[in-house]
Amino acid sequence: MTDVLAGDLYQMQDLLTDDERVVVERLRAFLRAEVAPIANDCWTRAEFPAHLVKRYADLGIAGHPHSSLLSGWIALEMAHTDPSMATFFGVHSGLAMGSVAACGSPEQQERWLPPMAAFDQIGAFALTEPDGGSDVAAGLRTTARRDGDAWVLNGAKRWIGNGTFADLIVVWARDEADNQVKGFVVRGDNPGFAATKIEDKIALRIVQNADITLTDCRVSESDRLANAHSFKDTATILRQTRSGVAWQAVGVMLAAYEIALRYAGEREQFGRPIGSFQLVQDLLVRMLGNATAALGMVVRLAQLQDAGQYRDEHSALAKAYCTTRMREVVGWARELLAGNGIVLGYDIGRFVADSEALYSYEGTREINTLIVGRAVTGLSAFV
Amino acid sequence: MTDVLAGDLYQMQDLLTDDERVVVERLRAFLRAEVAPIANDCWTRAEFPAHLVKRYADLGIAGHPHSSLLSGWIALEMAHTDPSMATFFGVHSGLAMGSVAACGSPEQQERWLPPMAAFDQIGAFALTEPDGGSDVAAGLRTTARRDGDAWVLNGAKRWIGNGTFADLIVVWARDEADNQVKGFVVRGDNPGFAATKIEDKIALRIVQNADITLTDCRVSESDRLANAHSFKDTATILRQTRSGVAWQAVGVMLAAYEIALRYAGEREQFGRPIGSFQLVQDLLVRMLGNATAALGMVVRLAQLQDAGQYRDEHSALAKAYCTTRMREVVGWARELLAGNGIVLGYDIGRFVADSEALYSYEGTREINTLIVGRAVTGLSAFV
Amino acid sequence: MTDVLAGDLYQMQDLLTDDERVVVERLRAFLRAEVAPIANDCWTRAEFPAHLVKRYADLGIAGHPHSSLLSGWIALEMAHTDPSMATFFGVHSGLAMGSVAACGSPEQQERWLPPMAAFDQIGAFALTEPDGGSDVAAGLRTTARRDGDAWVLNGAKRWIGNGTFADLIVVWARDEADNQVKGFVVRGDNPGFAATKIEDKIALRIVQNADITLTDCRVSESDRLANAHSFKDTATILRQTRSGVAWQAVGVMLAAYEIALRYAGEREQFGRPIGSFQLVQDLLVRMLGNATAALGMVVRLAQLQDAGQYRDEHSALAKAYCTTRMREVVGWARELLAGNGIVLGYDIGRFVADSEALYSYEGTREINTLIVGRAVTGLSAFV
Amino acid sequence: MTDVLAGDLYQMQDLLTDDERVVVERLRAFLRAEVAPIANDCWTRAEFPAHLVKRYADLGIAGHPHSSLLSGWIALEMAHTDPSMATFFGVHSGLAMGSVAACGSPEQQERWLPPMAAFDQIGAFALTEPDGGSDVAAGLRTTARRDGDAWVLNGAKRWIGNGTFADLIVVWARDEADNQVKGFVVRGDNPGFAATKIEDKIALRIVQNADITLTDCRVSESDRLANAHSFKDTATILRQTRSGVAWQAVGVMLAAYEIALRYAGEREQFGRPIGSFQLVQDLLVRMLGNATAALGMVVRLAQLQDAGQYRDEHSALAKAYCTTRMREVVGWARELLAGNGIVLGYDIGRFVADSEALYSYEGTREINTLIVGRAVTGLSAFV
Repeated sequence: MTDVLAGDLYQMQDLLTDDERVVVERLRAFLRAEVAPIANDCWTRAEFPAHLVKRYADLGIAGHPHSSLLSGWIALEMAHTDPSMATFFGVHSGLAMGSVAACGSPEQQERWLPPMAAFDQIGAFALTEPDGGSDVAAGLRTTARRDGDAWVLNGAKRWIGNGTFADLIVVWARDEADNQVKGFVVRGDNPGFAATKIEDKIALRIVQNADITLTDCRVSESDRLANAHSFKDTATILRQTRSGVAWQAVGVMLAAYEIALRYAGEREQFGRPIGSFQLVQDLLVRMLGNATAALGMVVRLAQLQDAGQYRDEHSALAKAYCTTRMREVVGWARELLAGNGIVLGYDIGRFVADSEALYSYEGTREINTLIVGRAVTGLSAFV
Repeated sequence: MTDVLAGDLYQMQDLLTDDERVVVERLRAFLRAEVAPIANDCWTRAEFPAHLVKRYADLGIAGHPHSSLLSGWIALEMAHTDPSMATFFGVHSGLAMGSVAACGSPEQQERWLPPMAAFDQIGAFALTEPDGGSDVAAGLRTTARRDGDAWVLNGAKRWIGNGTFADLIVVWARDEADNQVKGFVVRGDNPGFAATKIEDKIALRIVQNADITLTDCRVSESDRLANAHSFKDTATILRQTRSGVAWQAVGVMLAAYEIALRYAGEREQFGRPIGSFQLVQDLLVRMLGNATAALGMVVRLAQLQDAGQYRDEHSALAKAYCTTRMREVVGWARELLAGNGIVLGYDIGRFVADSEALYSYEGTREINTLIVGRAVTGLSAFV
Repeated sequence: MTDVLAGDLYQMQDLLTDDERVVVERLRAFLRAEVAPIANDCWTRAEFPAHLVKRYADLGIAGHPHSSLLSGWIALEMAHTDPSMATFFGVHSGLAMGSVAACGSPEQQERWLPPMAAFDQIGAFALTEPDGGSDVAAGLRTTARRDGDAWVLNGAKRWIGNGTFADLIVVWARDEADNQVKGFVVRGDNPGFAATKIEDKIALRIVQNADITLTDCRVSESDRLANAHSFKDTATILRQTRSGVAWQAVGVMLAAYEIALRYAGEREQFGRPIGSFQLVQDLLVRMLGNATAALGMVVRLAQLQDAGQYRDEHSALAKAYCTTRMREVVGWARELLAGNGIVLGYDIGRFVADSEALYSYEGTREINTLIVGRAVTGLSAFV
Repeated sequence: MTDVLAGDLYQMQDLLTDDERVVVERLRAFLRAEVAPIANDCWTRAEFPAHLVKRYADLGIAGHPHSSLLSGWIALEMAHTDPSMATFFGVHSGLAMGSVAACGSPEQQERWLPPMAAFDQIGAFALTEPDGGSDVAAGLRTTARRDGDAWVLNGAKRWIGNGTFADLIVVWARDEADNQVKGFVVRGDNPGFAATKIEDKIALRIVQNADITLTDCRVSESDRLANAHSFKDTATILRQTRSGVAWQAVGVMLAAYEIALRYAGEREQFGRPIGSFQLVQDLLVRMLGNATAALGMVVRLAQLQDAGQYRDEHSALAKAYCTTRMREVVGWARELLAGNGIVLGYDIGRFVADSEALYSYEGTREINTLIVGRAVTGLSAFV
């Protein structure tokens, strides 16, 4: 495979198997041909390119058993072209399909996963609440009340990605009877379900996040995730998606580096390419150092995942670290482009903005720090 | 005066005279009442609130002799509410009126300054060119050719703030005869003058920056700035405006701190205000340290200005330093607001985005570093 | 006055009065002539240059009423030559004489201050305890028991600067009767008082810090500080000395900058002075930015002090901020000197090492952060 | 293997083979039992523990074919206990033996490598010169003049590790005849060879660095490295040792983290272990993030080495990046120990100090940045 990312200085792509590289190559070609050209325009208009959804089905990336390395690299590639599209996929495939796979009965898996893998039905994941945020466990106030063969859900959710158009929304609610958190698959056309798009975002503008209200929303018992018994079941899912965000962060770093490197070669000042100035090389090499180290980190993380040795603190550290370094990298890239860096068409602006969302979602730096801190010290510092 | 900015921990506002504080109070009241409520909306739509222009005239802030401290504080206050409006004012008052004041003949000053002070005529300043950027001196390619009692200008300018609606544009061009850079006041309705708005900016979206083309644009000799004889005359003007950007950066820091402090007091997690957590106080105190030190720096800078001891390296250092610290501060504030920080309505997003423009305009960090570096080492490292 | 520090780019020394500049000039001459030449040697041998103590008396810097600006500048100058000597002076003049001045009766002040001002009697200040550290209030375990006309002190103190040779040690102990913290002036030759030098320090090696034990140490009632009634009285003293450390940090920054600037002009690589390289100028200008902003900050702090508007959070912020920036600065200077930077004779090594002590003493960054955080949020986050 | 380093959160030690882990275990046991207990004392006295040299022979770590991963991990372990001892080994095994292995004839390899592997003869490597530093190529002024069957060397070298006691010193000199740089193995007892210990270092004080003078120093032609023909041959050797320094940096990070973690669990303030405070966990997790990412980076670097795909920019990036992050880590650890962190006996002080040497030797951050920058931009920015 001759096609490599310019920022992959240590050739880590070579760690994929030949078959995996075929998947990556096909995905990369798709992203470059169909997503990259429209990304800035969709971003400006805060619109999701619905016409591309079905095209994902052909890529063979959802619903197939992957190594963790390939799963991570897929997230990397998507974020490298557009973090919003990576987020769309992460919500659908990681959070929603992941919930069904982890907590659904065999019948439920059979019922929901194939159409989701075919992108005939799009998923969402509704855990966060308006007043919840970091304190998601204690803060979860949405209620579920058993009523005969059904459940009645009431409450509000916030920040729900894909929420405005998803077909299947995995909603987490507290059973009034036993106070345990349980999972329900709510259909987007359920009359008790209402989603309002969150407007005026400055990041991930292509992602359609919704404020959701559940008003006496009735869900059949057969749509309750059979094996979700407590809040802890969500932790397993979040652990997976946290490492996905770390991979996204690496993708963003590599993209920002490439944009900056290309600009440094083309832009001339004082009669020569700015890439020949020490201060510019300094920025480039700082970017490359961050990206290379972060990539080395998530590669090892994927090995731990596949070896079944994967703990919450592993993904929390990667998420916090990689997104922190990403923020530095996009800032340096923007700096390198100077004035042109604030015009969307020069590409870096979208990555700068989207990085802010990646930095905060799936657990802020603070929360992930305290998860790791508790694991290594044996002492909780959350409150 | 009881009204102080929450972030002015060292009460530096007290350094203003009583009369100056009256000016500041009036300005602040105006900004809060008329600019703050519409800023996010204008920003989203990338529109300039033209109806407010005349209101500036009543504030007595342009065209009056000010101490440098008051001038700086005015820039601080404007940026504290909206960096775009501060930039509009900086371009009009600092760059355009400043050029006339510094390089105009008495007659020209008499002709142009009063209507500009009254905001009847709005100014712009056209120095930067598409390929120029940091290397503004050697890169200046716009030409001026004497033709009888007039001059014929040809060339292109980029990034010209207020460029789409300005009445009087100070254009800098190279005289073909003697190769010296001279200044011309071009009217916005000159048929040889064309301005195109730069679209899809991610920062300072309220500022109307233009790409300008000058095509056999004829300007009368009487509209040539009488005392602008070489490129060096622009340096005097830029020196003033660079310190203005440093003051703007302090204003942004104070705004970001206030937004974060307020949020820390209101937002609850784990059953208490997040302001009671060590990690949150850490962010707040880092912000406050940066803001306080930067404010101490520009206060002293203003004293040097008023004492006539003000050199290029003074303003270059302040510009580079304060905007660098500002970038840290807005990042910490955005972090503190977590997910809500990416929604424009929570206010911090606009400051995060706008900071990128302040960081790069009026000389990038790199260029200002090399200006200071040359002064202190006696060695030029530009190329 | 023509003699200025190279790093005082904004000429802040000019803010001193003519009389004050005479004091500074005399002090600077003394430091350069008598301290600088022996500093590295004393540092290596961890010895205090006792022969210089009496020379301080001639400088007129202790026991005279100074403006806060002059007091601060004196700390700056001392630290600029040697942070250990600045610390010796800070302990003697600030902490010990400061305690007598703030909490002594008129008779006690009369008895102790003149010989201390003449450096005939050297002071120390014993507050910190082995297990105390940051939690000095609750952790204070040294006891005082009234016994007729005397007091009996028992306990241990740690880190006591000048502790091995001081004549008068201000010891803070908890009165067993009312549980309040009170101050006692213990003579160094009191049989119940024992001081052991703390060996193998890597910072401030010239300062003689002692572990102190008090074993039935009897002190006459007349040696109890008459107006020290509770732990809060120590806060007033610490507030003053914290701002002194901020000034010391500025002195260290200016010294490190000068060393680096000089080296950049003298050291040649690739056929020219390294000061002509962009990466070297970058380091220099970052240093200068930090130093200039920090100096602007403490100048304003001194004004607040003199105006009587000085609160704990003011000095805590300056201490945390200036020492944090100092640490960056000495690191950059050391980096600039490359290999030679690790040889003591090139001067920067001592400042790098000593900075670690300044960073942690008189309240760590964490403690000062929480002091400021409490003041601005109204919420305590200490525990 | 149950014994792991506390900071190896991602269990990267598991990447070693079983045989390799035996080597690591044996080495670690030796370091803990024999080096750790004396390290601070040797450091204070700036003395090398000569009695340990022969003990290294039993460890089977020099002169055996190792995977690059094991070689790296050996450097990590040594630096984890003491960076000076790691440097001693790096100079002997990496630089000196590496030169013989890379540039010696089979006969020379046979003659020198076995006694060096047995630590019967200790090596040094003399490339750097007093005025050379970063510009080692053009700056190399030591001359070699052919004289019959011998060579006559003249010149000066600086910073030569092990230089005061080495038996075999690989000296690089410029052949006066063809101006090419060639390598010579000089015996330490050669009358034309003189080494003076560099005194008063503040870092790596256990390493005996020497200033060396070569005065008509005669070396037999048979002691000229047969396959060293130009300056470029030194680059191959430096590329290897640069990655070794990156591994050392990881070892230092892990050591600093462990020291801090242990202290955080033992030290109590405000009635509980300081490890339970958010600000302390923040420091620990930042350290751990840096260490984990850097370790992931050098693990991949070792794979590139073993695959023969290893280029200068690979090692230059790792060296610059890992030592930069190391400097942050030791600073945070020192901060966490507060006052006790400046006492050598608490262990962190030695690592803080030694890090400064690691940061600058084998190519400063600046030089390594420019090596990488040239590779990725295709543009040289050295001058």
